[in-house]
Amino acid sequence: MTLLDSQRLARQLRFITELDRLKQVLRQTSLIDGSRHENSAEHSWHLAVMATVLLEYAPAGTNLTRVLEMLLLHDVVEIDAGDTFCYDAQANLDKAAREQAAATRIFGLLPDDQGVRLRRLWEEFEAGETTEAGFANALDRLQPLLHNFYTQGGTWRVHNISRAQVLERMRPIERGAPPLWPYVLNLIDEACDLGFIAA
Amino acid sequence: MTLLDSQRLARQLRFITELDRLKQVLRQTSLIDGSRHENSAEHSWHLAVMATVLLEYAPAGTNLTRVLEMLLLHDVVEIDAGDTFCYDAQANLDKAAREQAAATRIFGLLPDDQGVRLRRLWEEFEAGETTEAGFANALDRLQPLLHNFYTQGGTWRVHNISRAQVLERMRPIERGAPPLWPYVLNLIDEACDLGFIAA
Repeated sequence: MTLLDSQRLARQLRFITELDRLKQVLRQTSLIDGSRHENSAEHSWHLAVMATVLLEYAPAGTNLTRVLEMLLLHDVVEIDAGDTFCYDAQANLDKAAREQAAATRIFGLLPDDQGVRLRRLWEEFEAGETTEAGFANALDRLQPLLHNFYTQGGTWRVHNISRAQVLERMRPIERGAPPLWPYVLNLIDEACDLGFIAA
Repeated sequence: MTLLDSQRLARQLRFITELDRLKQVLRQTSLIDGSRHENSAEHSWHLAVMATVLLEYAPAGTNLTRVLEMLLLHDVVEIDAGDTFCYDAQANLDKAAREQAAATRIFGLLPDDQGVRLRRLWEEFEAGETTEAGFANALDRLQPLLHNFYTQGGTWRVHNISRAQVLERMRPIERGAPPLWPYVLNLIDEACDLGFIAA
């Protein structure tokens, strides 16, 4: 390799080794067996597998590669910014600013062309407007719904979350993966009946 | 949804919730800060991000989506079969049989068409013969190399692994991601110089 090539590879590997730290960012959600909190790296893996398995519920023409790349990267800013609990209104006030600063530092580790491309993918996910971002966001809501349901209420019970709050939180599924919406409504109803969500 | 559709979705979600268990399968490799062992779910995420960042070192025409799907799924059989340490000759004797049985059960949770498709992807990864499988296998060797290097020898030191053993283990990188091979050879030499690999 030329000197230029090896500098490019060095920046790519610096980004890759930095990402190891996402394995230590803990989310509010527990593993399904309740043994410990989930971290953001394994969460991102889980969402990416879900995208492969549930692609048939995405709008026709959805580009799977873009969805996968978005999901793999959607939480890397948490290395600096931490995981912000979705129902914590206070912490969500400055979430965007903290995450933008993190994106500048972390994607800035990469060679410029790649840093720009991957940051744009992350921003596309955050905006949630394209078909791919809509589907990716839908999965990012569905997975904690499943975890909370299968841990008898999980973070809903810990924080006394209401049916209306859960329903609002799950809305992106209605738009991003419409065929899954009736299932989600059923599961929320069942969670209420079982006392997993506050009446 | 029709009754048939909801049964299909139920099988897909059964597979997805089963996968949560991969987050509890520990590998020999440590996180780069040495704080704990890495699990196979977060490892799979790390490899998938690496595929996105390092795609330019794959042979021309490599299909990224197939590589990503392979990497996301390559370790799911470990839910039943456990992680087999690559330098443990005894445990590797029955590894293939244990993993085939695991694949039958785990991919069998899915609707038949999907179970067949994803199992074939896993088998393609295991065989390592296609361009996509070659590149995916290269990354699966490169990531532990980086972790061992940045943990001052990691599993190499624990198990007194020789330079010849490391070199043999890394060979798939030479074929699967040829432009990375000179870097790998340099890193192994440096690891020997630093005493991370037994003389």
